Amino acid sequence: MANSPSGDSVTERVVRVLETFDTDRTVQTVAQIGRRAHLPPSTAQRIVAELTASGLLERDDDGRVRLGLRLWELALRGSRALRLRQAALPHMERVQARVREHTQLAVLEQDEALFLERLSHPQAGANITRIAGRLPLHASSAGLVLLAHAPEAVRERVLAAPLRALTPETTTDAATLRGMLAGIRREGHVVAAGSIESVSTGVAVPVRDGARGEVIAALAVVLPRDAPTAGAVEELRRAAAGVSPAVSAPHP
Amino acid sequence: MANSPSGDSVTERVVRVLETFDTDRTVQTVAQIGRRAHLPPSTAQRIVAELTASGLLERDDDGRVRLGLRLWELALRGSRALRLRQAALPHMERVQARVREHTQLAVLEQDEALFLERLSHPQAGANITRIAGRLPLHASSAGLVLLAHAPEAVRERVLAAPLRALTPETTTDAATLRGMLAGIRREGHVVAAGSIESVSTGVAVPVRDGARGEVIAALAVVLPRDAPTAGAVEELRRAAAGVSPAVSAPHP
Repeated sequence: MANSPSGDSVTERVVRVLETFDTDRTVQTVAQIGRRAHLPPSTAQRIVAELTASGLLERDDDGRVRLGLRLWELALRGSRALRLRQAALPHMERVQARVREHTQLAVLEQDEALFLERLSHPQAGANITRIAGRLPLHASSAGLVLLAHAPEAVRERVLAAPLRALTPETTTDAATLRGMLAGIRREGHVVAAGSIESVSTGVAVPVRDGARGEVIAALAVVLPRDAPTAGAVEELRRAAAGVSPAVSAPHP
Repeated sequence: MANSPSGDSVTERVVRVLETFDTDRTVQTVAQIGRRAHLPPSTAQRIVAELTASGLLERDDDGRVRLGLRLWELALRGSRALRLRQAALPHMERVQARVREHTQLAVLEQDEALFLERLSHPQAGANITRIAGRLPLHASSAGLVLLAHAPEAVRERVLAAPLRALTPETTTDAATLRGMLAGIRREGHVVAAGSIESVSTGVAVPVRDGARGEVIAALAVVLPRDAPTAGAVEELRRAAAGVSPAVSAPHP
């Protein structure tokens, strides 16, 4: 009943419609949504109408479509992302007050680093990270920390896949990365200079679940390429230690 | 094809499943989801399976279900809530550094005040507001500001509906509220003592779209009941004036 002739479920098609929106494409016509979701126009029209009726999408006066506040509200209520972010925010603010560049929080999600929060000084340097944006695990400082502490199966899968060079300095050799990851586990932090943008250096540390000890997130700062990093490492360690007790519930 | 025997669309049932989650109910069994969404067990099972396959829901080792990080990610990408919140955050942080209680940001959504952000001092007083939570327009300080500047049709609809008393001091008389709202439009702020919790006072100002001048949000602080409020009004006004230029795009 819920399946289309092509065999995909209505749920999948709803997800495909929602996935056509991103930070660079916040407002679309129904025709654009249909093309990008690979749906026949009538199907796109119907799903958009139903999602608009529920508030998950909104239409403006020109009939163009955007994500609804109701979707934001649903997604944040009871979300793991919000709980972790709320626990981390006061500690991130302390880091940011000292470092005055960019301070960010990421988790491992589907073999990438998903960024839950970013605080930026108005005069801070370059930073391609976006909230709810993703970066490759092997190239970003937060991603390297997450990869170092990921379950072995995840780590091997990521290292076995093609590793893209985002700059000439991105490490893309699996054996070299394996050595770097062992170093991160040993030293408790990473300094990644120029691996995701040539003009910046990322510094990151793991955040552990206070009760079980496993790494659940990474805290990072992004600095101008040649800035000193020792102070940032200390600030991040102190912040990560502050977050842990607040995220120690086995099941929230 | 996409409709059940009862006539509701699959999209509606997907939304109903997502709506069973909230801040007090972050982890549920499939049976609980089915009961709360008024769906037959087999339907609940199938929708949960499809949403889990897409990452919008996640299952833990015990088979219990929670909202997925993928839903959070989708909802935030290109979201109006995130853009407004990002524009407001640095200004909210300045207010919070001075007031050191609670500083929050709300928008009008479906005749209620929906809170997009809340910053709280670790030692701050009582505050029932939650991020992605809602409060009645007529009782909360942010809500009163939003109601004062709402389209007339919205204002009349809200004032015509039953107005619930959250404390003995909540104003529930439509004529009295009408006078209060006129005062808010005239003075540019509200001080609401004890109207949502007896122990606290809310102070709120409107945030205007920098280009079109219309009120798009409210900035508020929550103080202990008998704290002085004049300083907070000044801080909030300065913050709101700072946010406006950053939220002036006609269509982002």
